[in-house]
This record gives sequence, structure tokens and C-alpha cells, in this order.
Amino acid sequence: MPRTVSDGGEDFDDDVSSRTGSSHHRTDSIQHGYKVGFPPKKGLLAEFSDAVKETFFADDPLREYKDQPRSKKLWLSLQHVFPVLDWGRHYTFGKFKGDFVAGLTIASLCIPQDIGYAKLAFLPPHIGLYSSFVPPLIYALMGSSRDIAIGPVAVVSLLLGTLLQDEIDPVKNPLEYSRLAFTATFFAGITQAMLGFFRLGFIIEFLSHAAIVGFMAGAAITIALQQLKGFLGIVHFTKKSDIISVMESVWGNVHHGWNWQTMLIGASFLAFLLATKYIAKKNKKLFWVSAIAPLTSVIISTFCVYITRADKHGVAIVKDIKQGINPPSLHLIYWSGPYLMKGFRIGVVAGMVGLTEAIAIGRTFASMKDYQIDGNKEMVALGTMNIVGSMTSCYVATGSFSRSAVNYMAGCKTAVSNVVMAIVVMLTLLLITPLFKYTPNAILASIIINAVVGLVDYESAYLIWKVDKMDFVACLGAFFGVIFASVEYGLLIAVAISLAKILLQVTRPRTALLGNLPRTFIYRNVEQYPEATKVPGVLIVRVDSAIYFTNSNYVKERILRWLRDEEEQQQEQKLSKTEFLIVELSPVTDIDTSGIHALEELLKALEKRKIQLILANPGPAVIQKLRSANFTELIGEDNIFMSVGDAVKKFAPKSAENV
Amino acid sequence: MPRTVSDGGEDFDDDVSSRTGSSHHRTDSIQHGYKVGFPPKKGLLAEFSDAVKETFFADDPLREYKDQPRSKKLWLSLQHVFPVLDWGRHYTFGKFKGDFVAGLTIASLCIPQDIGYAKLAFLPPHIGLYSSFVPPLIYALMGSSRDIAIGPVAVVSLLLGTLLQDEIDPVKNPLEYSRLAFTATFFAGITQAMLGFFRLGFIIEFLSHAAIVGFMAGAAITIALQQLKGFLGIVHFTKKSDIISVMESVWGNVHHGWNWQTMLIGASFLAFLLATKYIAKKNKKLFWVSAIAPLTSVIISTFCVYITRADKHGVAIVKDIKQGINPPSLHLIYWSGPYLMKGFRIGVVAGMVGLTEAIAIGRTFASMKDYQIDGNKEMVALGTMNIVGSMTSCYVATGSFSRSAVNYMAGCKTAVSNVVMAIVVMLTLLLITPLFKYTPNAILASIIINAVVGLVDYESAYLIWKVDKMDFVACLGAFFGVIFASVEYGLLIAVAISLAKILLQVTRPRTALLGNLPRTFIYRNVEQYPEATKVPGVLIVRVDSAIYFTNSNYVKERILRWLRDEEEQQQEQKLSKTEFLIVELSPVTDIDTSGIHALEELLKALEKRKIQLILANPGPAVIQKLRSANFTELIGEDNIFMSVGDAVKKFAPKSAENV
Repeated sequence: MPRTVSDGGEDFDDDVSSRTGSSHHRTDSIQHGYKVGFPPKKGLLAEFSDAVKETFFADDPLREYKDQPRSKKLWLSLQHVFPVLDWGRHYTFGKFKGDFVAGLTIASLCIPQDIGYAKLAFLPPHIGLYSSFVPPLIYALMGSSRDIAIGPVAVVSLLLGTLLQDEIDPVKNPLEYSRLAFTATFFAGITQAMLGFFRLGFIIEFLSHAAIVGFMAGAAITIALQQLKGFLGIVHFTKKSDIISVMESVWGNVHHGWNWQTMLIGASFLAFLLATKYIAKKNKKLFWVSAIAPLTSVIISTFCVYITRADKHGVAIVKDIKQGINPPSLHLIYWSGPYLMKGFRIGVVAGMVGLTEAIAIGRTFASMKDYQIDGNKEMVALGTMNIVGSMTSCYVATGSFSRSAVNYMAGCKTAVSNVVMAIVVMLTLLLITPLFKYTPNAILASIIINAVVGLVDYESAYLIWKVDKMDFVACLGAFFGVIFASVEYGLLIAVAISLAKILLQVTRPRTALLGNLPRTFIYRNVEQYPEATKVPGVLIVRVDSAIYFTNSNYVKERILRWLRDEEEQQQEQKLSKTEFLIVELSPVTDIDTSGIHALEELLKALEKRKIQLILANPGPAVIQKLRSANFTELIGEDNIFMSVGDAVKKFAPKSAENV
Repeated sequence: MPRTVSDGGEDFDDDVSSRTGSSHHRTDSIQHGYKVGFPPKKGLLAEFSDAVKETFFADDPLREYKDQPRSKKLWLSLQHVFPVLDWGRHYTFGKFKGDFVAGLTIASLCIPQDIGYAKLAFLPPHIGLYSSFVPPLIYALMGSSRDIAIGPVAVVSLLLGTLLQDEIDPVKNPLEYSRLAFTATFFAGITQAMLGFFRLGFIIEFLSHAAIVGFMAGAAITIALQQLKGFLGIVHFTKKSDIISVMESVWGNVHHGWNWQTMLIGASFLAFLLATKYIAKKNKKLFWVSAIAPLTSVIISTFCVYITRADKHGVAIVKDIKQGINPPSLHLIYWSGPYLMKGFRIGVVAGMVGLTEAIAIGRTFASMKDYQIDGNKEMVALGTMNIVGSMTSCYVATGSFSRSAVNYMAGCKTAVSNVVMAIVVMLTLLLITPLFKYTPNAILASIIINAVVGLVDYESAYLIWKVDKMDFVACLGAFFGVIFASVEYGLLIAVAISLAKILLQVTRPRTALLGNLPRTFIYRNVEQYPEATKVPGVLIVRVDSAIYFTNSNYVKERILRWLRDEEEQQQEQKLSKTEFLIVELSPVTDIDTSGIHALEELLKALEKRKIQLILANPGPAVIQKLRSANFTELIGEDNIFMSVGDAVKKFAPKSAENV
């Protein structure tokens, strides 16, 4: 049916052109003079520096420095290292009010947690408190997150305890044990700072989300199980952390090891804590109820124990906490000997795990309040804080998820809330540690159980199950690794699973068969769009990944298999034979010599079968490399098109019209 | 200008539709009722088995078994393990003629090479010959390559020698040394067979082409340098393999260690061998000249030494070669003790390197003659051959590149040429080994130098330089690692570089800014197509990789950086503000929970800036996962389009018309 159109004179369209049915009206990208574009050739140095920049400076940290006088540059550099110089200038009393309340809230949370976490790492309780004093102050100077709450955390404490205990017995050699802990803390800091300084922060992204969810849940359950010691008042408890050893230890102590007074205290306060948590979840405004509940529990239970002298009846208490602030510990770090390397190894692992948690927290809250976090800068801050910490009797500190959430909800504005918390902890250390003497261990166990419950992220696990079954298997692997073997094995499984996933991703890219959507020029995956029809005599395959040495053979063989499948079908249905094989390269962002070699082999294999190989829409890097390697000459520049449509139009003009 | 077209009634086009300028004439994919396709929902088991199949059975080895009776299936399985049952049935005398000539030719090449390579591995010469007898016979039964020539090779011998020598001194404890060698060979075979059996063959593809080129060239030069001992007749030679130690050893022996008679023999025959190689290169028909030159040299030089009794004048000779065929060696393998683990470790490394070489050879010749090689099956064959070899006094055998090329050029048709070679080697072992007594070591050195020259693939290195500078750095790294440190370090560097490249590839995917090609509906990378123009108020970014946990944060931040750059430009040039951000997902083949989380954060960040996020052309896996995670609801299904064109048309109709 003829019809009239009133445009600028021509029909335009995407890849191929309007299909008006009469050729003299057709206009297409070829007629417009568009050919496969070659990006401008870069010099050797420019090419190299671009690659380095895109890899290591993807966030372009130097953009501010552009076109600035030297003094300004110096000031910017100082600000870069100490962000406090930037935000400190705009600090107001209004902000301080928010920070003050938030700081007090997280201090009330962190004091009992610190004591419990130090026990988890087999360290004396005051070292846990020390670690909530110095590191937050350093972080406040150098860190760029406004919401993170710094201090000891459960998972790192568990990991550190497990690893250190393998080397030195914390009961027999407490001094050597804490020396090794400081050594590990020092190297954890060095690891973190170096990763940031050399902009290698992306290394921590090699842990997949699924593996982390599984690992965290496993660690939470392991930590909770460890608390059964304090919760049930068991004296002779296993040193292993796997669920089977712990349960054996628990049941083995049923008749003579459980202490009912301890259990009563633990159970009633755990119920109280969980109740306040539930209330806070239901009504966000009441979050402060759950925030101050731990300290309230500590005060009440300590008072009760003191009044009733329950410690005489077998209720284990904290006993002595050393009074006074952090003594220096630089001289305690092992600078030589066999423990140097052991401390280094443990530090690297603990540092990386700590980093993963802190960066995740930083990013989450930054995106909630819409500000930018520079991951590498953040790592330098965390690393410095742990290095200084290791010299002032602290163990590995990082960002705590539960306390950061409370910090955020209590209305913190800047890192000053961490300073407030540190001052409260300092005052506690100086003045009121003797009061903790009668605090029952059971209450600390309840507080820790209550804190780690939140690490079991079953909602994420369910989401992973819905989105990708394979990922869920990975998640379960890490989870069971932690609870049935140990936290180290779980971590190892998590890393191995994550790496395997990366490697599978690059060796087994997807390919798709494309078909034409009837009455359009769109070519789409026939599996996704069942209405897409194949073009007779033409096989269109899209490769969905860069072609590198890892997958070049696979890609070649997979394409040949598509062809073989197609030919079988043609024989069965007596269709016309394939004469052209179009490889759609739009998603192929890069190619290396192995990839070019695979294309050459594909070309040869197709030539033997009298099939013409055609490439569609190669990207800038690909076309440049194909030309450098003379592949464009080998295949003929006429066989490289800007789009599948162009190619189909040239080689199967009839089917292009009759669809 | 109005015009008349006479088609089926409508204009059709790719992504958006014809742009006729008057809207009532427009038809587009939306009007045709095409929406983003959802692939049919698969069951849990189907999804899982599909993923496993695509990963491990990409070549679909079971296709032949489909719809076959049981007896036929059994027969096919036997054929699968022993391809000889298949090709053996069609074997003709015509083929045998080709195989016979080729077999004789490679036998003449391999006999002197075997003796030399065994020396390189610090093993007695007859073990080299043994390794050219049993393994080729096993391969002929199980292998599927028609052109590969099996036996000891230079690089594996060097590697094995270096690794074994670190554990046991071959001069002081020759028996223990060869026992460890058999143990390593056994585990090399186990490694190869297991990788094939569990279809993990893709693991060897983690060595990048560039790293292999550098490693091979370095190994070739190291091997050639090692030959200076025999070539110059030096008695006290360094045990290290790095270039500095070797050159020191060579110069240190200038005055008293060099033997002029040895040098005369070595130099003249090396010149002869290189000349024949040159002739063969110039005239392919004369390849046999270079093929028989080594054996000819051995015969002539042995005769000369025997006549002149040059061995009395300091010309080192082979001396005794044990007569008779392979004795069993199963009882010599270390089944327990500390050497078990050492043998295992060395075997795994040697087995992988051997595999890399053999598979590369198999693939190269298969593509030249256009037949298929199943990599995993091939690995099982190579592994079995080495396991049997380790029990019959052989050391690690694999495919030799130089001999395979000669085999191919001599007209081999099947693996029978390996059988012919094995029989010739057997006859040599039984009858004529005593004749090798007077063969000068210098001639073996010349033959090995001549053989490894071909491993320095400077053409590939130049191609790598042209195609990718970073790859060239990797190539150089492996090369210098081998020649300045050791073959182990070189290998380690090669693996590390290859892995780093893979990891960078997945953490730093490319993104591109798209623009509209004027007067079409094509959207292309503005860097590649400078004529492409931006659509006012709309920013179009394409992500060129699957979005996984490794890169999800990078992708999110890179997109925000594109936006920031754009906004700066808008401020400078006072252009209209960006209102829509279209993310083109065509190349994004998959997404995981981290990726979806990153998209959610991107959505939030954009909402704060009052910019609408729009997704274009998500693939089947992506759209399914976005829906599972309820992201489609979050963004609104109206904001997901089948193409960029559709989206631009809806949100910026004016600019879509006025381009």
C-alpha cells in the first residue's frame, strides 16, 4: 500500500534502514557514509598511561588538583590525608548536638561489647576497651565516613582468637599471646594501609556477596555457640569452635557443669535484650531503647550480683579490669624471631576481613546519605588507625555494623561521634572500671548473642536463593565451612568459591543465537524473544564477553557447535544451507592475541565448509587490534559491518525484505 | 519533502522506528507490541543442570549417545576411550605409507633428541629413549590427534631437572633421583588424567598466550645456555640455570675448561644443522633435509670420534647406554615418605606444563586439517600414557612441537606414525645403543640448540607488541623471569601475570558514553564514532560486561563519574541539565545480588539528584534476576525498554525528531 510521508526527505532508522520495499527509497547507515569507526590512534605512552589510570585511578582522585596554584595543592593534599581539615571548618554546634547524643549511645553499647569481644579473642577485657579509645580518635582525623562506629568487632575477634590460639596458648602464656596479638594488629594495619596506598583496594572485592553472607552467618552462630560457656556457666569448655565439639562440650557438662544462677541471669537478660530489639524494629523511633538496653542490663545485673554475692555461688564474674588508659606497646611487638612471620600472616588475614566489613559499612551509609567514599583513602585511614593501635595496646579495630547502624539512627553528623565515644571510654577506663568487677560473664554472653543475631542475614540469603541457585550453594558452603570446621576454613571456602566463580565467568562466556523480530530490523536472542525468526542461509551468533586467552578456544568451539546444531536441523527439515555466519561483536569489548588467533582458526574452519565469516559492530579496541594483527585484511574489510542489519541486507537482501 | 513509498504499508526499522517526522506515520517496536522478553521460567533442576552442562560439557560429548540402543552405546563408549577403534576400521594401506615415512622421519629426529633431553633432566640417556617407546604406543590407542609426535620435550625436561635437582643430587644419588623422577611422572599423569576426567581442562587456559610466548623463549635460551657445557667441553659447570651464573661459569672456564676439538665438532655441525633448517624454511619440499640432518650428524660425528679416538683428547662422549627395552619401575615409585609429597608437587607442575604444550599442538594441527579435538579426552590419554610410562621407566612425555611439525610435513595420516617411531626406538634400544658410545656430547648439544631455536617465537612477540603493550610487558616478565632467575620463577611469573590479567578484566570492565549517529537511530560509542552526538538532557552509558560482585561498585561509581563529568561540561557550556540516565545493558549478560544492589544504590543516588534511571535491552538472565529481586518494581517496568532508541523516543521525543 503506497503512502506518503513528509519528513526531511528520507527514512532513517537504526541498524539497517527503513524497509520500504523499493530499493531506490532505501537509506541506511551505509548510504549515510557510516562505516565501522576507528578510534584515533594513541601514542605508546598515552595508551599505557590511560590503561594504568583507568585501572588504578578509576575514581580520578587528582581531578581537584587540576589548574590549582601550588599552595592550594598543598592544602588539598593535607585535606586529602586528613579530611577533618575540610569538614572541620564547617562544623557547627547543631551538628555537635547530633554527634554528642550518638556518641553517648554508641559508647553505652560498645563498653560491654568490647569486654565480651576481647574475651572472644582470648585477650584481657581492658584491651577491648583500649581498642575503642585510640583507633576511633585516629579515624576521626583521617576517615571519610560520617556514620561508621570504630572499635573491636565480633567476627574479627573470633578470627583473631582462633588464629592466635593455634600458635600460643592464651592461658599459659598470656604475655606472649598479647604480644603476638599486637604484632598481628600491626601487620593488619600495614596490610590495610598498603592496599589503600597502592590503590589495590579492589582486591577485597574478590569476596562475593554470597560468600560473605554465608561466612557472616556461620561466624555469628559460632560466636553465639562460644557464648554458651558464659551463658551456662561451664568451666571446662572446648577450645575448638566447630559446632560438634561445642555441642559435645555443652552436653558433656549437663550434670555437673551448668550453673542455674548463671543461666537465670543470662536467660532473663537475653529475653530483655531481644524484646527491646523487637520493639526497636517495630517502631524505629524507639531504637534508643535497644541501644541503651545492654548498658542498663550490665548495671542492673552487676548490682544484683554485688548485693547477692552470687559470685560465691558459682556465677562467673569479670573480676579485675585494669584501670587507666592505654600503655604503649611498641616494644611488645615481635620485630624478629618466628613469631614475626606468624604475626604477619595472621595480621594479613585479619586485616583483610576487617577491611571488608569496614568498607561495606562505609559504602552502605554513604549511599544512604548520598556522599562519596574513596575506598582507597578509607583503607589508609583504617590501616593507620590499626598501626597506631598496635603501639598503644589495642587489637584489630574496624567498623562495627550494629554500632554504626545505631550511630546513624541516633543522628550522628560527622566522625565527632567517634570522638565522643572515645572520651567516654577513656573516662570509663580512668574512673569506673573497678565497678565492672562484679559484672557477671553471663550478661556479656547475652549481649554478644544479641549483637551477633543481626549478622545472620536470612533475608539476603533468601534473595540469593531467588536470584541465583549457584550463588546460594556458595553461600551455604561458606556457612557450613565455618560452623562445622572453623572460621579459617569457612573463610578459605568463601575465597575459593568466589575465585572459582570469577574464573568460570571468564572461561565460559555466554553466546546467543540471534533472530530477526518480524517487521523490524532488530536482531535479538531467540531464547529471550521467541518471536524472533532466523534468517534463511544466515547464522547470527553473538559473543557476550571480551575474547581473551581464557575463553578464546571456548568461543571458537561454541560458535562451531551452534553451526553444527543448525546444520543438523537444516538436514532434518531440508532447509537451505548456511552460507554466512555473522558474529555480532557488540558486547566484545576487547580481544587479545589468543582471541585473534581463535578468530583466524574459525575463519579457516568456515572456509573449508564454504561459509563466509562476517563480523558485526566491533568496538574501538577490537577493530584496532584486529587491524594491527592484519586480521581485517585476512577476512576482508568488506566483511566487517557496523551492524547485523547492514550485513543481512548485503548478503541476504531478499530475506531482509520479505520478513 | 514528501515522497511516496510502496511497501507493505509501514516503515520498519531497528530500535526505534522510521523517523518520518510526522507522528501518525511512525511505527516502532513498541507499536508492534514488542516488549522486553522474559525467557520461559525454568525449574530448579533444569536451571542447575543447564548451568553445569554449559560449564563442564560445553562440547556436548553425549550428543552421539542420544537415541541409541544399549549395545551401540557400549560400543560408542569404548570408541570414546579408545578412538583407535573408530579410525582403525577405516585404516588403509595408502594411509600406512604416509604414516610409515613420517614415523621413520620423527624416529630419526627423536633418538638424538631423547638422549639430549634426558641429560637436560639429569637422567641417564636410555630413560629418554624409553620415554619414546611406551608413551607413544599408549597414545596411539587413546589419543585423538593425528599429527602430534609424543616423547620427551625440551621445556618439560628442563623444568623437571630443575625441580628434581632441588630435592636430590643427581650425581651423588642417581637411583633416588630417578625414583623421584618416576614418582613425579606418575603424578604428572594422574594430574593430567584427573583434569580431563573431571572436565577441568579449562584450567590450563589460565596461562595467557603472551606469558607462554615469553616463558617458552626464556626456556629455550636457558636450554641453549645449558648446552654450552657440552658445546664447549666444560667439565666443571654451574648447576644453576640463570644466565648470570651460566655466563660466569663459561667465562671462568675460558683458559683451562674449553676444549677446542669439542668446539670444532659442535660448531661445524651446528652450522650444518642451521643451514639445513634454513633450506627447509626456504623450500618446504626440502623439509626432509632438516629432518634427517640430526641423525646424519650423529652418525658422521660418532664415526669421526671413533676413528680419531678424539675422546682421548678431552672430547666428552655419551659412553654407555644401557641396552634392552624398558624394565618395570612400579616398585621404584615412592608410595610413602617425604618424597611422596615432593614427587606429587613436582609432578603437578610438570604435568600442567606438558599438558599446555600438548593441547596447543593438538589444537593447532586439528584446525589445520579441520578435525575436532576433545581437550578433556586428550588429557585423559596423555595422563594414562604418563601413568603407564612411570611404571615402565619413562619420564614425563608430551607432544613435541618441532617433531609434530615434521610429522605433519612428512605426511602422517594417523597416530600410527607414533607406533612406527616407537618400534624404531625399540629396535634401537635392543640392537644399536652400543653404537652410540662414541657419540660426542657436543653433537647432542648442537642438536638441542638447533631444536630449541624454534621456540623463540619472535614473530608472535612482535604481534603481541603491536596488539597490546600490556601483554607485551607480561611476555617480557615471563621471559626475564626464566633467564635471570629460574624456570620455576619464570613459570610463577607467567601464571601470576595471567591471573592478574583475568582479575583486572573482571574488576575493571569498560563503560562507554553513547551518542546518536545523526539521521539514524543508531547509538554508538562517541569515542569510536566522533560523528555521534549526545542527546540533550539524556545521558546514555553502556556497561560492557556482566555486573558481578567483583565490579558492581566500580560500575556504579564509574556511571556516577560519567554523570559528574557531564554535569561539569553542562555548567561550563550552559547546556540543559541531564534529566534521564539510560544504562544500555545489551552487553550485560548476567548480574548477581551485588550487581542488583549496586543498581539500587545508583537508583537512590539518581533520585536524590532528580534524574530518572532507565534501563535499555536487558538480556534474559538479567531481566529474570531483576524481577526476582523486585528491582523491576522499584524502578518501574515502564522505565525498562527494549532499546535505547525506544527510551529516547519516549523521554526526549523532540531530540529524537530533530537530529
